[in-house]
Amino acid sequence: MAASVTPPRGMRDFLPAEKARREHALGVIRGVYAAHGFDEIETPVMEDSSRLHAGLGGDNEKLAFAVMKRGLTADDLARAAASGDALALADLGLRYDLTVPLARFYATHRAALPPVFRSIQIAPVWRAERPQKGRYRQFVQCDIDVIGEAGQLAELELLTATVATLDALGLTGCTIRLNDRRILQGILASWGVPDELRERALITVDKLDKIGVAGVAAELVEIGAVAAEVEVASALEGLTSADWHLHDGIAPPPAWLDEAAYADLLALRVALPGAAIEFDPTLVRGMGYYTGTIFEIAHPEFGYSLGGGGRYDGMIGRFLGQDVPACGFSIGFERIVDLLEVDDDARPRAVVLVYDGEVAQAPLLALKAELVASGTRVRLERRVKNLRALLDRVTADGFDAFATVTAATTDAASLEFRELGA
Amino acid sequence: MAASVTPPRGMRDFLPAEKARREHALGVIRGVYAAHGFDEIETPVMEDSSRLHAGLGGDNEKLAFAVMKRGLTADDLARAAASGDALALADLGLRYDLTVPLARFYATHRAALPPVFRSIQIAPVWRAERPQKGRYRQFVQCDIDVIGEAGQLAELELLTATVATLDALGLTGCTIRLNDRRILQGILASWGVPDELRERALITVDKLDKIGVAGVAAELVEIGAVAAEVEVASALEGLTSADWHLHDGIAPPPAWLDEAAYADLLALRVALPGAAIEFDPTLVRGMGYYTGTIFEIAHPEFGYSLGGGGRYDGMIGRFLGQDVPACGFSIGFERIVDLLEVDDDARPRAVVLVYDGEVAQAPLLALKAELVASGTRVRLERRVKNLRALLDRVTADGFDAFATVTAATTDAASLEFRELGA
Repeated sequence: MAASVTPPRGMRDFLPAEKARREHALGVIRGVYAAHGFDEIETPVMEDSSRLHAGLGGDNEKLAFAVMKRGLTADDLARAAASGDALALADLGLRYDLTVPLARFYATHRAALPPVFRSIQIAPVWRAERPQKGRYRQFVQCDIDVIGEAGQLAELELLTATVATLDALGLTGCTIRLNDRRILQGILASWGVPDELRERALITVDKLDKIGVAGVAAELVEIGAVAAEVEVASALEGLTSADWHLHDGIAPPPAWLDEAAYADLLALRVALPGAAIEFDPTLVRGMGYYTGTIFEIAHPEFGYSLGGGGRYDGMIGRFLGQDVPACGFSIGFERIVDLLEVDDDARPRAVVLVYDGEVAQAPLLALKAELVASGTRVRLERRVKNLRALLDRVTADGFDAFATVTAATTDAASLEFRELGA
Repeated sequence: MAASVTPPRGMRDFLPAEKARREHALGVIRGVYAAHGFDEIETPVMEDSSRLHAGLGGDNEKLAFAVMKRGLTADDLARAAASGDALALADLGLRYDLTVPLARFYATHRAALPPVFRSIQIAPVWRAERPQKGRYRQFVQCDIDVIGEAGQLAELELLTATVATLDALGLTGCTIRLNDRRILQGILASWGVPDELRERALITVDKLDKIGVAGVAAELVEIGAVAAEVEVASALEGLTSADWHLHDGIAPPPAWLDEAAYADLLALRVALPGAAIEFDPTLVRGMGYYTGTIFEIAHPEFGYSLGGGGRYDGMIGRFLGQDVPACGFSIGFERIVDLLEVDDDARPRAVVLVYDGEVAQAPLLALKAELVASGTRVRLERRVKNLRALLDRVTADGFDAFATVTAATTDAASLEFRELGA
């Protein structure tokens, strides 16, 4: 029986060491984002099924876990069987991202929020994906969003807060990769991609890292988005090596370049003089709802982005029935938490009191209380024959020292601590 | 449309002020429990449906939110319709408590845990209860459990850690109310309650606070547990005034008193000389799984308990197929979070920079970065005509001071801050 006792498929338990590492990282993220003027909110893990399936979630809508209505009758079941519509039996669902709940939250509470609302959301989301290495069915997202700011200050505050957070986590030396959806549209137009295939073509371009220039060009032909595979491949080759010298104001800009969007990107670069910023006209960032700037954070040591985001002016106001400018950034928490080194100096001293059976409970507890009051973390361990094994175990658990408590120990001062580990 | 934009029924959004209060309280709880040697773990919010409905959750099993299987076919729906069994369509469910997941976690990971495992779980649970004031369908539980310790040190560490946590939250002066399930069994036996009605009778006795002595006695007769209503009422009357002088070792003890259990309670009292501890032989603590000591924490200012727990030796090992001693305590987080006063001195200084349209983005961001680096929380606000309204709003949001940024402001030293509020 014990062999089958596992968490649900694709979901994880966190043991003490891993849980401590996660909480530490979340604390750092919370603290830096708050210092940068963002405010944390929380929404329920469930939303009404109709909102989760309102078309704002893209492909993720299909991955939502559905929560069954309570008190379903035989009639309800028969009706669902007749229509073949299982979702009719669900009134709620688990959120698959934090953006749909944010749109709902903003519609509910706008009157109580400042005109420019900078939100933090740090919370789990659920997707019924096929479990695979590094991909889970429950995972934490860390989102910040600026709602109600149409100007670039939104992008700038998101980027500075995020870089500061990654710095605080020890992930210094990050690079910001920038692009704008309008530039992507210009590129597709220059290739003659018909309007109705633009979104589909972007999905293909988004695979550049995985399938390369030739693969993207071939797929664009395959889906009927372009005719001239060779020309598109050559154009793509040029785009991947584009940089800020693309348009220096002297030579004429490339025909495909949306100049207004490019000017905006240059302005962002000027406003962030200390940051490493690259222009990447092939950057897509999956979600279809982006309308302007898109960005990603890369670290020289890792082959994947540490997070990304962009402007999505059409979406937050959807449940409100009016447009509201919005821009957001999401840290890839599950990716970065594994990269962090735990700073042992940052945690309080932790000691083990090894007691034997002759020690009375009251003085043992008083001793523990005295040490706790001095700022020390204390674990009691009953003395066992194999003391070495016990000490190895508590060393692995991160304890710094131990002392033996006997009937003769009367207060913390009479304890003789010996350091554990190296 | 806006009027219907609400969170799901019985669930809550938390706006920034309330979220900050909750996170602050959770941080205090985490910190004190960790200092007392407990280790935080986390499990997924969902568990396999079969585990949630294995009989360990009592009445809460009926309140579980069920998560539908993915990819249900018309055949699956037809089969459920034919059997009338909606739950056959669910393979997962949201946890209704943290104890069933802990039992599953312990069975999964026992080999990696210390022989005496002191766990912290701070996490939401879900129950499809009829929503009412102060009762929610998603709420946070804060549980600590000691697993693998058969002796009273488990109860003692739970009680000292909990009282210390409440002290740290500002809820000083708490009283511990103690009883033992064996004493309750002795009382029921003295009334002649048949074995098969014992659990049912305890549910009735548990209502003493609500329906009084006469109500309990009447209900016990009604369910057939006792015959002599008057005698039982008189006995109950005596029990409610019981205290530690009940059995002083000179006069013979009452016939109903389980003397071994009472001796254990006295030993707990001796081991906690600094705590206010009451003996209450009518204390029941709902859950049917308790096997020994049960306790509750009361505060003189509030008419309800701040939390409770007890020993439940039969349950944690259920998924493991062997008995494991266990004792736990749960803080009533949703109740206490409303009682807390936020300590303004504990949070960093927060300032607002009011900027006008002439200020360039780069120096504005540099100014913000300089203040953030000095440990200050900073929010940017665009200058509006009605400055008073803006200042009132940010004062309500908890900011301490503001300064106006103009094109002439070159660094943080040139800002003139004015304090906000009282």
